[in-house]
Amino acid sequence: MKKLKKKKVIVTGCAGFIGSNLVDRLLNKNFQVIGIDNLSTGQKKFIQKPLKNKNFKFIKMDLINSKKLNKLSSNVEMVFHFAANADVRFGYLQPKKDLRENTIVTSNVLEFMRKKKIKKIIFCSTGSIYGEAKNIPTAEDENFPIQTSLYGASKLAGESLIQAYCNAYNIQAWIFRFVSILGERYIHGHVFDFCNQLFKNNSKLRVLGNGFQKKSYLHVEDCINAIFTALKKSRGTINIFNLGTEEFITVRQSIKILCKKLNVKPKISYAGGRRGWIGDNPFIFLKIDKIKSLGWKPKYSIKKSLELTISYLSKNKWVFKKRK
Amino acid sequence: MKKLKKKKVIVTGCAGFIGSNLVDRLLNKNFQVIGIDNLSTGQKKFIQKPLKNKNFKFIKMDLINSKKLNKLSSNVEMVFHFAANADVRFGYLQPKKDLRENTIVTSNVLEFMRKKKIKKIIFCSTGSIYGEAKNIPTAEDENFPIQTSLYGASKLAGESLIQAYCNAYNIQAWIFRFVSILGERYIHGHVFDFCNQLFKNNSKLRVLGNGFQKKSYLHVEDCINAIFTALKKSRGTINIFNLGTEEFITVRQSIKILCKKLNVKPKISYAGGRRGWIGDNPFIFLKIDKIKSLGWKPKYSIKKSLELTISYLSKNKWVFKKRK
Repeated sequence: MKKLKKKKVIVTGCAGFIGSNLVDRLLNKNFQVIGIDNLSTGQKKFIQKPLKNKNFKFIKMDLINSKKLNKLSSNVEMVFHFAANADVRFGYLQPKKDLRENTIVTSNVLEFMRKKKIKKIIFCSTGSIYGEAKNIPTAEDENFPIQTSLYGASKLAGESLIQAYCNAYNIQAWIFRFVSILGERYIHGHVFDFCNQLFKNNSKLRVLGNGFQKKSYLHVEDCINAIFTALKKSRGTINIFNLGTEEFITVRQSIKILCKKLNVKPKISYAGGRRGWIGDNPFIFLKIDKIKSLGWKPKYSIKKSLELTISYLSKNKWVFKKRK
Repeated sequence: MKKLKKKKVIVTGCAGFIGSNLVDRLLNKNFQVIGIDNLSTGQKKFIQKPLKNKNFKFIKMDLINSKKLNKLSSNVEMVFHFAANADVRFGYLQPKKDLRENTIVTSNVLEFMRKKKIKKIIFCSTGSIYGEAKNIPTAEDENFPIQTSLYGASKLAGESLIQAYCNAYNIQAWIFRFVSILGERYIHGHVFDFCNQLFKNNSKLRVLGNGFQKKSYLHVEDCINAIFTALKKSRGTINIFNLGTEEFITVRQSIKILCKKLNVKPKISYAGGRRGWIGDNPFIFLKIDKIKSLGWKPKYSIKKSLELTISYLSKNKWVFKKRK
């Protein structure tokens, strides 16, 4: 009997938070995975298990190097392009970083796909591209956006490039606009910063902004479930989905959950202001009707996601040494 | 009596179609102008008169070279960033060109401005960023766009970068989304292509698409008037305006005007299809209520703009040799 051929895919950013969780899932689903990461923020520890799996091949590579990328052999079916600079907050300190790592790298990946005739791309975008949206919760066809961060700008540029490639070169795309993702291997964002502060000194906590910023979160497991649902059930040329939960939470509320979970009572000081930093969005909350209409819904509440994340960070304090 | 200090500005793409018309106007208004152009599509002939004006300084420079750009001394008040690859049609043949010349170059200009503390930018964007809009005529706050061309994608990326810079570095921007511009020094687009064909052989004309594509045009004089109106009357942080007329015209109708004006009766063949080329938009028509509310309105009808352009091209056939 003929053996069924395994589906082969590329995952960029395979050692990152979401990327490595995706790799685990793909290997469970019996895909062959070529994982690419430059390990700038990705952690080899996150792919320890895949590295022992014969269906996984790791390539350490910086995707800005298009020559090296184009040398890759490529009988793959699709590219999960998850490599990115995911830091919204410090973008303005290095204004070229987002452009390079999110826009130009995406262009390199698309050129690679065009040359190798790979016809499917799955792209990590962000709710940040809505800027400060007029309508909240914000749907995928919100009004024309005005960017408020270099991160959002670079991701919108990435999305736009992908769309133009779909139109010109017969490529098919799934674009996901995430709220903040939580869960195992979460290694950046303000829950990370709060834990970092409290693990060092649990008697005080410094918070950017006035703490009334409203945020939305999704657990990484739910996020990956949604991606597979969309891949299976949405087959248009350009498939765009918001991913989030139908809840939001203020920074003050998440601090309460955090302190209860860690059993600490720090003195909290607020820096003040509606925004925690330049480009911080005081209210991110995405409409998820489109992805829900395909039968997906989140399993974890924001509270549960936060608790699981805090547990993970408590047990994996090494991540704070790696991420400074 | 103290002499009034002249306002000093930079115009990138100063030897291009719109850029050179803008330079003329700025010099007439007694500005001091530093003009930058790499002369890749810009024509030195277009700035013959400015080159003799003591208020004009020309610098031949490719803006992709950020080191050279950043050496420029810069006690200027604002930058008119008009340098661009303006070719929508052939973008897909050189997929990196738009990214490099429209997105990365814009990032270089913004970095230059940030470093030199220049606080005002005027940016040539395009109606192409609306992709194939849901609502026609299309307003500035149209639904979230899906890009259909690499040109549109690169310009949207440029707009987005500018917006993020406005938010982070206290820069003020005027962004103009143009329909196709016609007039003196017009050197690319399908009217140019049609004239080019007919000047070579007036017995036949080959037309891409079915000729029913609906296009909108604006005369370059009206375009520049609108820019000055907006600069004077709209003083927000990010000022975005569609520029066009309240008419549109089919390609077939413009061919009629063209043939009448040239007094030719070619055999016309249509390639067929709703779109003339990959990424061609079968209907571009922008809502211009926002700029009109500031008191501007176009002086020239589309018909008049076409006739003036055809006259210009008839008298300046050298431009066809330069642009191939």
